[in-house]
Amino acid sequence: MLGHIARRLGHLHGHPMYNGFNPNQLLSKETHRHLQSSFQTTSPISMMSLWPFSATSRDYSQPNSSWSPEMQRIYDHYNSLCEKETGNGDKKRGPWRKVPSYNRSIKHATGGAHLSKLVQAKARLFTRSFKEHGAGFEYVKFINKEEKTCVCVFQAGHLLEGAPGYVHGGAIATMIDTVTGTLAGYLSGPVMTAYLNMDYRSPVSLGSVVLIQSALDRIEGRKTFLTCKVTSSDGSKLHTEATALFVSINVGHLFGARS
Amino acid sequence: MLGHIARRLGHLHGHPMYNGFNPNQLLSKETHRHLQSSFQTTSPISMMSLWPFSATSRDYSQPNSSWSPEMQRIYDHYNSLCEKETGNGDKKRGPWRKVPSYNRSIKHATGGAHLSKLVQAKARLFTRSFKEHGAGFEYVKFINKEEKTCVCVFQAGHLLEGAPGYVHGGAIATMIDTVTGTLAGYLSGPVMTAYLNMDYRSPVSLGSVVLIQSALDRIEGRKTFLTCKVTSSDGSKLHTEATALFVSINVGHLFGARS
Repeated sequence: MLGHIARRLGHLHGHPMYNGFNPNQLLSKETHRHLQSSFQTTSPISMMSLWPFSATSRDYSQPNSSWSPEMQRIYDHYNSLCEKETGNGDKKRGPWRKVPSYNRSIKHATGGAHLSKLVQAKARLFTRSFKEHGAGFEYVKFINKEEKTCVCVFQAGHLLEGAPGYVHGGAIATMIDTVTGTLAGYLSGPVMTAYLNMDYRSPVSLGSVVLIQSALDRIEGRKTFLTCKVTSSDGSKLHTEATALFVSINVGHLFGARS
Repeated sequence: MLGHIARRLGHLHGHPMYNGFNPNQLLSKETHRHLQSSFQTTSPISMMSLWPFSATSRDYSQPNSSWSPEMQRIYDHYNSLCEKETGNGDKKRGPWRKVPSYNRSIKHATGGAHLSKLVQAKARLFTRSFKEHGAGFEYVKFINKEEKTCVCVFQAGHLLEGAPGYVHGGAIATMIDTVTGTLAGYLSGPVMTAYLNMDYRSPVSLGSVVLIQSALDRIEGRKTFLTCKVTSSDGSKLHTEATALFVSINVGHLFGARS
């Protein structure tokens, strides 16, 4: 494993993408930018601060009519762990936090300024770009601050097909990138994906609900190493294993800072 | 590299997914099943046999109004290489073949029989599931039989966003899986993705056109090892590098054979 990682890091160290703040070199994810600050706010339990998103944005990780009873059950389970009873019957924050999810990355950012206005206006987050409930990626992520883990309940819609009846390997990779990226962003602030290695063990049936669990391996300077696995919802069957490396970046330019 | 691969193969050898024809263990891709036979037919130049697809299926790799001039230019270039002039002015097959692309995997297959009829009926191939031209994955693949390579021209639509203005790492992984899987399927027959390792070097701008090129590394028994890279359309900028392993499978059960 060490040799493997050392080899991979060899790819990264000398690359110009790590020397400066060129906007063209940015590749961070969904909610990374606001997670760190969100966890320090006094926002209501289970709903973290929406900054830097619009306060009226729809949270796509809320239950909808397409969710299967199993999806809803697992959601309810983790949601209940977001608060815990104190001795006198009051409730306080539990070990888990629900991560809200929107269909557009930071709207106020200058990222994408090189794009045509039309593409900029129509751009939507890949994992939230399917309009019909249940057709694409239905998922909700929870983060455990103390354990430094992230769990995602994922229901794979009918538009994600690869082989007949099974979820496309690229759709699974997309969810692994999303879940590991969310945890890396929470732990290390703004990051970008440097590598993603996936071992596919058994396919995921279209329409089924799986758990995607990511844990911190270690942090070395600007590098955050994570592990991830996709299992059946009861954890008994392993579908995919993955390792990922995220590298911290400066996103000052996204908010108008001059680099 | 060898040690890395040996470690990975260690994951695969003993796994039950390689012992039998359990449909639940199938994970092959898009066009793998018909490519081998297609290349042996006498179908028109640049249009391979549609079997086992319906003859009336729409080929999604045909040019449409969303294609940028650059996308069209590269398509025209490779398309022209699908035939060559002979001495007397006639045309015969060139070194490249265009790979047709549909929005549903084999319709007649029994794969997915465990799914609800509704999900089965509505299922669509992930990379072709965006209805609006240009909104999702616009791509066309060409295979070079002699060089054992596959090239894909990919225009990334506005619904594939990750970081603001850039393509989601999962969307890039999806295309790498698609391109390497197509080449592996052509070379080795029905296969499934065993591993996929991606190094992200620089992000891809939303709306831009990139080249995805895959080449055969080697075949060892049932294992087909491939490399892949994503570059700017002129080849000057490297966006992503990848290695992939595909394992040959028996898909007799897909066509009703009893295992």
